Amino acid sequence: MRNLLVFFTLLLFTFNLQAEDGHNLWLRAKSTGSVDIVCARSSATLTIAKQELEQGWQGQNGAKFTLTIKKDKAIKGDGFKLSENEIQANTELGILYGVCELLRRQQTGQTIQNEICNPSYDRRVLNHWDNLDGTVERGYAGLSIFWHDLEKGYAVTDNDRMLWKEYARANASIGINGSVLNNVNSHKLMLTPECLQKVKAIAEVLRPYGIKTYLSVKFSSPTLIGGLKTSDPLNPEVIKWWKDKVKEIYTLIPDFGGLLIKANSEGEPGPQDYGRNHADGANMLADAFKPYGGIIMWRAFVYAANSKDRACQAYNEFMPLDGQFRDNVIIQVKNGPVDFQPREPFTSLFGALKKTTVMPELQITQEYLGHSEQLVFLATMWEEFLKSDTYQEGIGSTVARTTDGSIFPQKYTAIAGVANIGLDTNWSGHHFAQANWYAFGRMAWKNQMTSEKIADEWLKLTFSPKEGKNVNINISDWQKNFLMPVKQLMLESREATVNYSMPLGLHHIFAGLNNTHYGPGPWFAPKGIRIDWTPAYYHKADSLGIGFDRTTKGSGAVSQYHEPLNSQFENPATCPEIYLLWFHHLPWDYKMKDGRILWDELCYTYDKGVNEVRQFQKTWDKVQPYVDAQRFSEVQSKLRQQCRDAQVWKDGCLLYFQQFSKRPIPFDIERPVYDLDYLMKMDLTDMLK
Amino acid sequence: MRNLLVFFTLLLFTFNLQAEDGHNLWLRAKSTGSVDIVCARSSATLTIAKQELEQGWQGQNGAKFTLTIKKDKAIKGDGFKLSENEIQANTELGILYGVCELLRRQQTGQTIQNEICNPSYDRRVLNHWDNLDGTVERGYAGLSIFWHDLEKGYAVTDNDRMLWKEYARANASIGINGSVLNNVNSHKLMLTPECLQKVKAIAEVLRPYGIKTYLSVKFSSPTLIGGLKTSDPLNPEVIKWWKDKVKEIYTLIPDFGGLLIKANSEGEPGPQDYGRNHADGANMLADAFKPYGGIIMWRAFVYAANSKDRACQAYNEFMPLDGQFRDNVIIQVKNGPVDFQPREPFTSLFGALKKTTVMPELQITQEYLGHSEQLVFLATMWEEFLKSDTYQEGIGSTVARTTDGSIFPQKYTAIAGVANIGLDTNWSGHHFAQANWYAFGRMAWKNQMTSEKIADEWLKLTFSPKEGKNVNINISDWQKNFLMPVKQLMLESREATVNYSMPLGLHHIFAGLNNTHYGPGPWFAPKGIRIDWTPAYYHKADSLGIGFDRTTKGSGAVSQYHEPLNSQFENPATCPEIYLLWFHHLPWDYKMKDGRILWDELCYTYDKGVNEVRQFQKTWDKVQPYVDAQRFSEVQSKLRQQCRDAQVWKDGCLLYFQQFSKRPIPFDIERPVYDLDYLMKMDLTDMLK
Repeated sequence: MRNLLVFFTLLLFTFNLQAEDGHNLWLRAKSTGSVDIVCARSSATLTIAKQELEQGWQGQNGAKFTLTIKKDKAIKGDGFKLSENEIQANTELGILYGVCELLRRQQTGQTIQNEICNPSYDRRVLNHWDNLDGTVERGYAGLSIFWHDLEKGYAVTDNDRMLWKEYARANASIGINGSVLNNVNSHKLMLTPECLQKVKAIAEVLRPYGIKTYLSVKFSSPTLIGGLKTSDPLNPEVIKWWKDKVKEIYTLIPDFGGLLIKANSEGEPGPQDYGRNHADGANMLADAFKPYGGIIMWRAFVYAANSKDRACQAYNEFMPLDGQFRDNVIIQVKNGPVDFQPREPFTSLFGALKKTTVMPELQITQEYLGHSEQLVFLATMWEEFLKSDTYQEGIGSTVARTTDGSIFPQKYTAIAGVANIGLDTNWSGHHFAQANWYAFGRMAWKNQMTSEKIADEWLKLTFSPKEGKNVNINISDWQKNFLMPVKQLMLESREATVNYSMPLGLHHIFAGLNNTHYGPGPWFAPKGIRIDWTPAYYHKADSLGIGFDRTTKGSGAVSQYHEPLNSQFENPATCPEIYLLWFHHLPWDYKMKDGRILWDELCYTYDKGVNEVRQFQKTWDKVQPYVDAQRFSEVQSKLRQQCRDAQVWKDGCLLYFQQFSKRPIPFDIERPVYDLDYLMKMDLTDMLK
Repeated sequence: MRNLLVFFTLLLFTFNLQAEDGHNLWLRAKSTGSVDIVCARSSATLTIAKQELEQGWQGQNGAKFTLTIKKDKAIKGDGFKLSENEIQANTELGILYGVCELLRRQQTGQTIQNEICNPSYDRRVLNHWDNLDGTVERGYAGLSIFWHDLEKGYAVTDNDRMLWKEYARANASIGINGSVLNNVNSHKLMLTPECLQKVKAIAEVLRPYGIKTYLSVKFSSPTLIGGLKTSDPLNPEVIKWWKDKVKEIYTLIPDFGGLLIKANSEGEPGPQDYGRNHADGANMLADAFKPYGGIIMWRAFVYAANSKDRACQAYNEFMPLDGQFRDNVIIQVKNGPVDFQPREPFTSLFGALKKTTVMPELQITQEYLGHSEQLVFLATMWEEFLKSDTYQEGIGSTVARTTDGSIFPQKYTAIAGVANIGLDTNWSGHHFAQANWYAFGRMAWKNQMTSEKIADEWLKLTFSPKEGKNVNINISDWQKNFLMPVKQLMLESREATVNYSMPLGLHHIFAGLNNTHYGPGPWFAPKGIRIDWTPAYYHKADSLGIGFDRTTKGSGAVSQYHEPLNSQFENPATCPEIYLLWFHHLPWDYKMKDGRILWDELCYTYDKGVNEVRQFQKTWDKVQPYVDAQRFSEVQSKLRQQCRDAQVWKDGCLLYFQQFSKRPIPFDIERPVYDLDYLMKMDLTDMLK
């Protein structure tokens, strides 16, 4: 309660003039007094914990604070017990997490009472889609922080170590304890001794912060770098090769986390290349890792080029294998059945795989949500997903509970997020994209956490009124004029993006040109391309209507959902309108719940999205007095871009679909300002500055 | 009255499906019956008149109609007397004009009563800024219809003659009787025998339609092509050279109109190069042309590179010469003192030169008003100009009356318009830019004509419900749903352009980059450029305020205006707000009449301009059922462009000026969507498709 008072009673702050480039993320706590730390043990991790406590202490000046490592059954994994003068934990890492939580509460003015904080998932892992040449697949924040230039080898500099340490500290502050260091579309050289030496160097920097390293590797590594003639998972030589390789890894990196495997997906090699199934492949690797406590995260993102419905395939392929996987295999399943679209229903495998451990894969980087150009706070999307009820084990079988061990017995629990981190000074390209990194960590720790709470925390930490301008700011003014409106903006931002890009259940209608996945492309269909990579495969717009029929009369994807969802999705009248065109092909004059016909609703929704972004601009412009000049103008500039992009989305989609609907855009909304043929020819990323 | 009935009682039309590319301009009359023409004389012009009457007759089937050439003092020049069954005129051309007027009235449903129609100006001249290499300076409708490729000589093809005939017919239909065939920045070869041969060929095609040819030539032609050592207008050899050259011209082209001279202006040679003044130069040429009835149109568009106020200079230079010019010299004065800006007060020379003939120069091509990308109907601007009261000879001394011979005794009266005509299929680039060509002709004929009447005529002729779609359209529906809203759009279009580009008296703040004059450029100031070519010379924005002080405390330009204008303009409280920043430098918080401060008013006005264009888009989209597909979509596309351009103007100007005003853009209007630094670097024409 005291800290709350500290926060609220410090009515006036003197702001500093320091240039603010966003590099400090949400880590801005500066001590306001001394603290007398009592800690019986010492270690690299505990040293960090004590340093953090000293540097960030905002409690009573000179207070005594105890860090205690003591077994307590109520505390799980790296959880901790927090009280006003003590943190107790089972592990050193638990102490560090407790310190970070304490400082966060001090800085955000939250109460500190006796409380046990346990993580929802054991493994809270960032997936870096970083390539060994330094590029980042779907990375919009500069080059890789881990890999530079393959030509130049794997040298490690002091600057590298400094940056990795900052990275590790940021992750630790939000409970992230694992990093897959490279792209799921992995490089064949990943497991070579030279490369593993670099992994070792990275692991050494991350280790004190409690972050295990993981790698993505080619399933065909035995052939590619081992000189074997096959990579058949049942081949004894292959099995031996992997066992030796795993031993080599653990000799270098004793706490190595395990592997993330993309197999038989989008051209990546896998067990099916040798007539084996996913279980055969995953289990062979799992057996090799088992002695070291390593895990195999096996991706369920698989689909064949010419299937009738890509959304059905992961379920069809993995359900027959349920019960066949080792207990250290975790099937990593994207939140949505098609891909990381702005909105999809949850993937039907959640809760359906009952004898197999499943982990959610979220995408922090905004591949389909405006890259790092657009302000889209993803926590609301993840909250919607985690709280989705699968009904697989009765009411309340939410995705969260089917994956965090609440329902199914699981040796491991895990959650992954595809990172949005790069060499950009502010790490994530957009200052507000940092909030998605933050939110992933917070939700991975506590999957019941609301996006509202996360936004509130992040804003207080990141745009603290103690930072920024050299003016006196009244804290209640700050809350009313900055915190509330900007939080509101964040919480509305994902829905706005859905509205101006893929509303009403539309999905996968983004630009394919140059593989940017940026901007609209419902028309994209170059000669010879896989049809399931063309938007028309998904929107199926024609003179009769629009949408993908996944009812029992269509692809039957609805049947993969447990009742009552199955029936609810099957019937357009009961299907939530946010998923309407995901499950149904409906006529242009289909009557929506608000009385409008579908075409009009589409128009109004796109237009609403544009206007929401305009409103975001106003909100942001109004908070100028509360934000340092650099971050203010950088965010302002990105919001301008977002407004232009929203217009392009609206114009492109409405004008394209209008060719089929043959109906006017309702005259009470603004007209398109681009021609369709112009938008069809251009690559929207060319319009970026 | 009968024609009115024909128009209104034909309730249903069957539309044709013919592709409509706009090439037919406003000339779409098709006869609805036969007419029995009585005409005692015959000539090329009368033959045309009779053909037009037969092809376009929409009066009573089989009616008898008489064309009579008979001297009548009430009929002036090529005027005519129109009655239901007869046209009477002094000249053959008068007959042709009468026929065109009759057909126009038939087609637009206007009454035909006994009426004498006399032209306001004798010489109604298009100035083509066409270069001998086929390009057109400030032309936005393709290459020149007259000149092709200088390298290839002056060959004339049948296609050329066909096009010139169409051009001549269009001009004749609206009373234009002169064409200056080449750019005022003329080519030195213009007066060579080879080139004059081509002029002769053009003149022969134009002649039957009553159009005289004129040329622009270099004042230094005697030196450039005559082999003389000087072009001093008082040098006897020079005088002789010109006399001989003029004789040569008239031998080839007996009805040659005369010359248009840009002298001692923007680098063009002139009499001042030899220590002579404008009168010396103009009079020498006038003397050479006098025997043939030719005139010299001498441009007053002169300004020195470093003067304190460019707007003052024409007045200062020409007023001392008043009374010194020959009676066949006409001083051609642009409507505005600076240039053809979207809005300026009239040039102070109008009415002030009392012993010198003055002709207005209007710009039909949209150099500063969005080229042929934007829909801007200029008639409202010209009406505002022509009706401006100079007070030079008492109340009612309008610009129109000071130039059309109503007030001053003049041997000649004339008006010029810089053409917007090129090889584009639709002649003018934008379908609605044709309306400006049309309006110039109509106002040159009758300078009291309202822009409303002109728009009404032009729309009825050009988008006649008899044209276009193959559907039955009720004529009263057409009037209500097409004519009224589109006419309204046209009449508001120039004010909208002023609002989103140069409101409140701002002027000359357009883009200078690449000399495009397209889009905003208040920041334009490359190193070494003449300061009077930089927008800052004109807007003078600084921390204190914005605007050009032309009061007696400033440049004193107000003093060039006759009372009560002088006093009215001098005082910001009485200065019309549309000219406010043209005459005054005012503080950002200057209180406007509506109670807003100047900065806010500027913001609201720019924003209003953007919203007006959005409204134009809606208006146009709604008339789709009444317009052929091609013209509908071409205009729709241009309006989209215009909307994007308006946004760029608003953003560029507000963000630029905001650097000085240091005030927020009011939060109830939409935020900019472009960054200033982006707009400052780019050339808006690059954004055109």
